[in-house]
Amino acid sequence: MVAFGGGHGLHATLSALRVLVDDLTVDDLTAIVTVADNGGSSGRLRGEFNVVPPGDLRMALAALCGSDTWGDTWARVLQHRFQGEGEMRGHVVGNLLIVGLWELLGDPVDALDWVGRLLGAKGRVLPMALAPMDIRAEVRGLVPGDPDALTTVRGQVEVATTEGVITSVELEPPDPPVSPVALGKVAEADWCFLGPGSWFSSVIPHVRVAALREALVATEARLVVVLNLEEQQGETGGFGPADHLAVLFEHAPALRVHTVLADAANLSDDQRAELRQVVDDAGARLVVDDVAADDGSPRHDPAKLAAAFARIIDGEAS
Amino acid sequence: MVAFGGGHGLHATLSALRVLVDDLTVDDLTAIVTVADNGGSSGRLRGEFNVVPPGDLRMALAALCGSDTWGDTWARVLQHRFQGEGEMRGHVVGNLLIVGLWELLGDPVDALDWVGRLLGAKGRVLPMALAPMDIRAEVRGLVPGDPDALTTVRGQVEVATTEGVITSVELEPPDPPVSPVALGKVAEADWCFLGPGSWFSSVIPHVRVAALREALVATEARLVVVLNLEEQQGETGGFGPADHLAVLFEHAPALRVHTVLADAANLSDDQRAELRQVVDDAGARLVVDDVAADDGSPRHDPAKLAAAFARIIDGEAS
Repeated sequence: MVAFGGGHGLHATLSALRVLVDDLTVDDLTAIVTVADNGGSSGRLRGEFNVVPPGDLRMALAALCGSDTWGDTWARVLQHRFQGEGEMRGHVVGNLLIVGLWELLGDPVDALDWVGRLLGAKGRVLPMALAPMDIRAEVRGLVPGDPDALTTVRGQVEVATTEGVITSVELEPPDPPVSPVALGKVAEADWCFLGPGSWFSSVIPHVRVAALREALVATEARLVVVLNLEEQQGETGGFGPADHLAVLFEHAPALRVHTVLADAANLSDDQRAELRQVVDDAGARLVVDDVAADDGSPRHDPAKLAAAFARIIDGEAS
Repeated sequence: MVAFGGGHGLHATLSALRVLVDDLTVDDLTAIVTVADNGGSSGRLRGEFNVVPPGDLRMALAALCGSDTWGDTWARVLQHRFQGEGEMRGHVVGNLLIVGLWELLGDPVDALDWVGRLLGAKGRVLPMALAPMDIRAEVRGLVPGDPDALTTVRGQVEVATTEGVITSVELEPPDPPVSPVALGKVAEADWCFLGPGSWFSSVIPHVRVAALREALVATEARLVVVLNLEEQQGETGGFGPADHLAVLFEHAPALRVHTVLADAANLSDDQRAELRQVVDDAGARLVVDDVAADDGSPRHDPAKLAAAFARIIDGEAS
């Protein structure tokens, strides 16, 4: 089983899938993680060491930590962000540990496996690419007086916070080196999960990496696309569920999607009809289930998501 | 068994004592470590977070790491120093991990025990005091034209590199809080080891902490003082073995020393006679053994030191 994504969205998916690992529903879990971040602690380390930004990898590892005091404590240590007013402010302990391991061991995948062993992680975490990536977006609406003019916006932070409407994203370089381990996991998987998360900067980038896209098209694994619960200001302002799915297909027309998972409470009748149209056109199956957190946040609830995943895998979902 | 010191000297002692743990000669090993450093990565973190400087603690933990690939790898990760030209340059991974644990867990001793468990450490590592300390030295020879004038020098780096002759060192504050665990270990120990190491900045500070000095005077443990192999420019320029021992007694007249260990190859006949006088006056026993590294460096060889310690403990040394 392979989960693609980055940031908090992937954290939710992995928190759900680890439940299925504990249930023995899943016996082999791999996270493949975006490495295009250029902000915060990750961006600083990327700039200083010319490494893949470690933050999303660290967050994915923490999501998979062992369920005992050992795993929980080390996950909290790795997630700890330094406060204060000095040079370390904003850096995250796990990011520094990962970069130290990369410097020491050389092999980025081996180093991540060491962190996984430290955490007693219930799966492996691999980078989307073995080199740091940049996101480049074409954005409409940034030129005063010319609402249709396209502007190129570069950088994950800049794309995620643009005030215009993103029409497409590319990666630089477009064909980066990908870990053969990641490609092998996709080829062997029974199920792949894409999303939720920042749609243009954490989800779609996976299908813009040539080798990963080809692996996803070629695998016999069934692909589940997990839609976001709401639009995200900046990246997807004004986007409904159908729009999210449609732009994914625009970026990877050959992608075969098995199931699209949407949240029942965040889907109006009109949105549901629009979404069903896009899902049907893609030859996929629409699953509308209860997966949102009860606290009113636009986050998925890991336990509900785990239950929904289990129903999808068991073929019991409608 | 308790070893007092800091830096590379304590690393050598602990590397030797862990051999005795593996031999089952020693079943309970504790390192008590100086926390007066104000330079390098430790000094930067101390300044930024107002914490005990972590560097000597980290080095002691690394010295005690488990003998398997797990312990060895994590020890190397913790000892890894960032290169490059950016803000992280010079910082050490283990220092950052320890400070992160301190911030997260609050209790400094509990945090160090977590690092010890990570490493599969063969003993515990405790700080000399629970608050960061400063060294203040009285130094002769810094006033041009007045060779006997005393100048006060503050800071571990400044003391260790002074061009004058140190006559005494004090700590600020002189009576810091000390971990009850450390005091308990000293009270229960059969043997205590003091030195080798930077004499005025890593060795003597232990007997200038009021609570530790009182614990050392009160314990029934036999105290072994391990002398340095040669003078150290800055701290002990012009000092012979007898001078090292004499200044230790000047700083802690009530200290009861059981054994003084010196290296045979680094002791001239004159030095030996002088040293024996000081040792006899203290009612201690002089052991001259082969403990120096074969590479010509002024470092102790851990295997030789382990053998010498074993002979001292077995009462076979002469």
